[in-house]
Amino acid sequence: MSSNTFGTLFRFTTFGESHGPATGCVVDGVPPRIELDEADIQRWLDRRRPGRSRFTTQRREPDRARILSGVFEGRTTGTPVGILIENVDARPRDYSTIKDKFRPGHADFTYWAKYGIRDYRGGGRASARETATRVAAGGVARKVLDALTEGSVSIRGALVQLGPHPVERERWDWEAVEENPFWCPDRAAAERWEGYLDEVRRRGSSCGAVIELAASGVPAGLGAPVYGKLDAELAAALMSINAVKGVEIGAGFGAAALSGEVNADEMRIEDGRPVFLANNAGGVLGGISTGQDLVARFAVKPTSSIVTPRRTVTIDGTETEISTKGRHDPCVGIRAVPVGEAMMASVLADQLLRHRAQCG
Amino acid sequence: MSSNTFGTLFRFTTFGESHGPATGCVVDGVPPRIELDEADIQRWLDRRRPGRSRFTTQRREPDRARILSGVFEGRTTGTPVGILIENVDARPRDYSTIKDKFRPGHADFTYWAKYGIRDYRGGGRASARETATRVAAGGVARKVLDALTEGSVSIRGALVQLGPHPVERERWDWEAVEENPFWCPDRAAAERWEGYLDEVRRRGSSCGAVIELAASGVPAGLGAPVYGKLDAELAAALMSINAVKGVEIGAGFGAAALSGEVNADEMRIEDGRPVFLANNAGGVLGGISTGQDLVARFAVKPTSSIVTPRRTVTIDGTETEISTKGRHDPCVGIRAVPVGEAMMASVLADQLLRHRAQCG
Amino acid sequence: MSSNTFGTLFRFTTFGESHGPATGCVVDGVPPRIELDEADIQRWLDRRRPGRSRFTTQRREPDRARILSGVFEGRTTGTPVGILIENVDARPRDYSTIKDKFRPGHADFTYWAKYGIRDYRGGGRASARETATRVAAGGVARKVLDALTEGSVSIRGALVQLGPHPVERERWDWEAVEENPFWCPDRAAAERWEGYLDEVRRRGSSCGAVIELAASGVPAGLGAPVYGKLDAELAAALMSINAVKGVEIGAGFGAAALSGEVNADEMRIEDGRPVFLANNAGGVLGGISTGQDLVARFAVKPTSSIVTPRRTVTIDGTETEISTKGRHDPCVGIRAVPVGEAMMASVLADQLLRHRAQCG
Amino acid sequence: MSSNTFGTLFRFTTFGESHGPATGCVVDGVPPRIELDEADIQRWLDRRRPGRSRFTTQRREPDRARILSGVFEGRTTGTPVGILIENVDARPRDYSTIKDKFRPGHADFTYWAKYGIRDYRGGGRASARETATRVAAGGVARKVLDALTEGSVSIRGALVQLGPHPVERERWDWEAVEENPFWCPDRAAAERWEGYLDEVRRRGSSCGAVIELAASGVPAGLGAPVYGKLDAELAAALMSINAVKGVEIGAGFGAAALSGEVNADEMRIEDGRPVFLANNAGGVLGGISTGQDLVARFAVKPTSSIVTPRRTVTIDGTETEISTKGRHDPCVGIRAVPVGEAMMASVLADQLLRHRAQCG
Repeated sequence: MSSNTFGTLFRFTTFGESHGPATGCVVDGVPPRIELDEADIQRWLDRRRPGRSRFTTQRREPDRARILSGVFEGRTTGTPVGILIENVDARPRDYSTIKDKFRPGHADFTYWAKYGIRDYRGGGRASARETATRVAAGGVARKVLDALTEGSVSIRGALVQLGPHPVERERWDWEAVEENPFWCPDRAAAERWEGYLDEVRRRGSSCGAVIELAASGVPAGLGAPVYGKLDAELAAALMSINAVKGVEIGAGFGAAALSGEVNADEMRIEDGRPVFLANNAGGVLGGISTGQDLVARFAVKPTSSIVTPRRTVTIDGTETEISTKGRHDPCVGIRAVPVGEAMMASVLADQLLRHRAQCG
Repeated sequence: MSSNTFGTLFRFTTFGESHGPATGCVVDGVPPRIELDEADIQRWLDRRRPGRSRFTTQRREPDRARILSGVFEGRTTGTPVGILIENVDARPRDYSTIKDKFRPGHADFTYWAKYGIRDYRGGGRASARETATRVAAGGVARKVLDALTEGSVSIRGALVQLGPHPVERERWDWEAVEENPFWCPDRAAAERWEGYLDEVRRRGSSCGAVIELAASGVPAGLGAPVYGKLDAELAAALMSINAVKGVEIGAGFGAAALSGEVNADEMRIEDGRPVFLANNAGGVLGGISTGQDLVARFAVKPTSSIVTPRRTVTIDGTETEISTKGRHDPCVGIRAVPVGEAMMASVLADQLLRHRAQCG
Repeated sequence: MSSNTFGTLFRFTTFGESHGPATGCVVDGVPPRIELDEADIQRWLDRRRPGRSRFTTQRREPDRARILSGVFEGRTTGTPVGILIENVDARPRDYSTIKDKFRPGHADFTYWAKYGIRDYRGGGRASARETATRVAAGGVARKVLDALTEGSVSIRGALVQLGPHPVERERWDWEAVEENPFWCPDRAAAERWEGYLDEVRRRGSSCGAVIELAASGVPAGLGAPVYGKLDAELAAALMSINAVKGVEIGAGFGAAALSGEVNADEMRIEDGRPVFLANNAGGVLGGISTGQDLVARFAVKPTSSIVTPRRTVTIDGTETEISTKGRHDPCVGIRAVPVGEAMMASVLADQLLRHRAQCG
Repeated sequence: MSSNTFGTLFRFTTFGESHGPATGCVVDGVPPRIELDEADIQRWLDRRRPGRSRFTTQRREPDRARILSGVFEGRTTGTPVGILIENVDARPRDYSTIKDKFRPGHADFTYWAKYGIRDYRGGGRASARETATRVAAGGVARKVLDALTEGSVSIRGALVQLGPHPVERERWDWEAVEENPFWCPDRAAAERWEGYLDEVRRRGSSCGAVIELAASGVPAGLGAPVYGKLDAELAAALMSINAVKGVEIGAGFGAAALSGEVNADEMRIEDGRPVFLANNAGGVLGGISTGQDLVARFAVKPTSSIVTPRRTVTIDGTETEISTKGRHDPCVGIRAVPVGEAMMASVLADQLLRHRAQCG
């Protein structure tokens, strides 16, 4: 994994800035003869698309994915799949107010420190807009997983905490996830979150979130120890998403407080096959999948672009303030759900190909 | 990062099983003309060595690192540094009791599921013994960092939670870390932990831990967005350590509950240079270092090898029990401190070289 | 180097089929703040463009390169440079005559054997059309070389053999190269080649060629031994060009027949600096540049698409014949000149960044 | 392929200098459950070993390969195979005569130019001694090929030209290769070569050679277009061997002089399967194997270490002469035969795993 390329065998390279003419990705390593068309990608992009509810940015991007290569007569050919997403609503507006200021919590200062130049329009390359191309690549990853596991792998994500407010696990219902604007699995929580988030926005503030991902039907044996472990690569994949500050697998940080007896998932035989009596491991032992659900959580910090004025400095070393008035999500964690799913799908597709290579 | 090689430019490949003749690593990409001898590696290995206190395994491994290549007349030559660590105390004992059983919480089942064969002696490749080679490579990484930053980068680690018992941050003293067997920065906590851990071991149980790492003096601008972000690679590096279940940067999971105003670190000018008024970011914005301390935490699950009998199954599908009587650490988190430091050093050395390549 | 990505630090990924909507490339690792615009790419694409003379294919492709990312206000930003080249003259014609036949000398059979599916329109991914994206990436590489060596590196190519007819080295004139349709450095040879190639085409045949590349001003010290040697990577780069069957460096195959005294280039001091008295090494010793001209030659086989009918078989195992009537170059070696230059530029840019990383 | 690691999935990393304590390699990506022991490696090392005849160096190296990891109870486990070869005959002699001089034709000057430091003892890392570790890795590659193709792939090499004296192809007999000290397939030529090479040595000179490699039984479909083509990777693999100056596939440079009709191998059906009527392609079309013999040739320059004095310079810029009196091969091309075979085996093993990953 390096710079703008993700993965080793199922591998995608992305490019594009927030306000450039287009973003896109090149997906390489795709097995041949898999059915793939633009709708297979578009359905996931639509989940991430801005403006789905009043809780996400009102930037109007259709996010239309166009396949430029690698597909012939509806099936993949084994050559790289080029995907282009044009930026439509990249408004040529006045950037003079932010051009020379480092927005706190953003990558403005660090890009400038690193490169000595930065595309300040809408965050440039550091914008969450980049995640559209990940979701597109993730759509291809899902097709690869489907084809290679005969549809056994299913990946789902849900918001399990908004600001300081977690869901209650006993009320978890995967169907609820599709019914509210938060991808929340707890209907009661979702209701309360509406009021909470309206209030956050009214205050000119923002909040963070925790997302949980679960992949079921993952075959046992996926993972490339010791530096390409399934959980290690998943951690990198999720941490690479904008604004993510933490990743955990299974019992996660909570595992530190468990006793050895409680933590290590015991095994029994059921229907002639080994089963686990718990899943504190989150589906990974020694960096290799156990066959149980692969469970990961990641934490997203609050949106840094807020209306409340904040102290900052300019490129030439002057102290100043900044207040962001753009079309921003009050909680970027919400739209991170489909992005997390896409990254998990990509990690699994990659590990599946690596497993095939070494173990047949 | 893939399978048994870590890093892209500062890059090391490790090999070796717990009870084979030797483990070792090959460190490639090392800049030339850096002073390096075996003592530079040994001092870090000694921190990780078993048997330093009654709280770590009593396996007697001198862990002597021997440099086989890449150093000439006391300085690196730019060619790969081969390092060998012989296994001395790999006792040829009777494995018949564990040969066919999957130890819960260990990688026994998953290695078998993946490869259809496993070296069951002491966990084979999945043993924490592999971390000795990481620490050796980390010793080289520290020399590289020293040479390239004129000694500005300093990396330290501490245990901040043992089982359910965290340290108190107001009592934090880095000097305390070197004075107790836990690398605990809180003297009062360290004292209480002794009793707690004795009790855990007496019960035939084990416990987990949380480690905090901090690198100070990191230049701003290190990181390779968007898939080779500094925090993403650090997350992978730490998650790849045995028994790790969670990684967080700066405010980490706690960031989800903060407001946008509190979370985004404001900036001012001090002595003509931009400074941050807080470090919720943990020293990383947009995957690039800010110049503040790089702060990460990782959670280690309880040792899976415990005396208390646990239910499990055998390779041929029989239900059984297992109880581990070997020479095991009651909390593997303790010895994970120097390992975490080594991985952070390696990630930084790698990012430093990558930055040099692109930005001069 | 793997599948559709070339290079390690200066690295480009290409996509696109001969008759798909577009081809393109993503160039990653580009240092920031280098002046770059579309003209810097277009000038090299224009050299490779079909239809420049009667000796190249009459397909009418403007080969317009459009930069989609990575450049801001005329300078590179350090983020990936996405480049798109639309296929304009991809005629939706009748492929029924070649759809099921394997054209001898082409990759039809092997793509089908590998992938079980193939885009038969104009050779699909195996078409020499892919080389347009290499030339575009090479244009970026040249800018990187210029910026990092202050313009010292100059890369030139010439056709030194057309069919069985070599140039005479004593008549070599680099200026002649730009004056004839063959990039031939020997004016007399160029004249004779016209008649020869007209005759080849009249016969419905084709011919091969040998191209020589020379980079002057290459600093000593570039190369990544022992598997990333400058000459090894150059060999891979050139051999990866369509229809290439051989690569040699300096004295090349001829070196086998030299004596040790003649072959090893002696050294003297001139103006206080070491110089070589000959260049049988072609500018590389031990995989590292010597500072002399980097000299490579590569052989291109005759165009496989010819009018003369050839025996072949169909996908379903029937014996048949095939005769190609398309718009083909009688000697693909001619247009391989700018492609070879682009690959040499890319190899050098990559090695330069790798050298900076390790040696500062 | 980068620096000291070869391959992508079947991947080996080597380390070690000519006169250091040991050289070795770590072979990663090896499929599990393949029978492997030290004899499988030793048999190939013995072919490369110095001192087999009066025509190779008299340095006395037993070249004993010791497997340190990755094998359990006689079978591979899927974890990295560490192999160590100790340097036994690395004489601690007086280097004062060569310490400061750049030997013409050697990498002395370029290593110094690149790294500013060099291990001058016996050429250090640039010594052909490094090829022992390649041959060891190649031994593992052969076992992988055997296991995955059920023994169908057979790789052989032969010297087809010594100095200016080629073999005659009509006298080619593979059995002869094992009967003379040159790996020469032409008994009459081998006889004449003895006198020729004795004379070369008597004169204090040296000569070059051309080696031909052929792999039969390679399945159609191996290769990773467009930058990981089978022939491109083979070219890099062979060019990375010490002293190699040229590589060609099939008809190679000769293809440039053929007509399109002659060059493109026609196809027919035999026993219901497609066959080719010639093999100018050398078994590769579009970078993918055709199923025909994979045929490559590479040129090795004359040994640079000769008794005849040559002009050179010192590190501090003084003009001087050098004459090498060590234990050198008069033609390093001879011992390059098993090295070439090992590299071809490694390239094929790697491509086989890559093909499995993408195409199942």
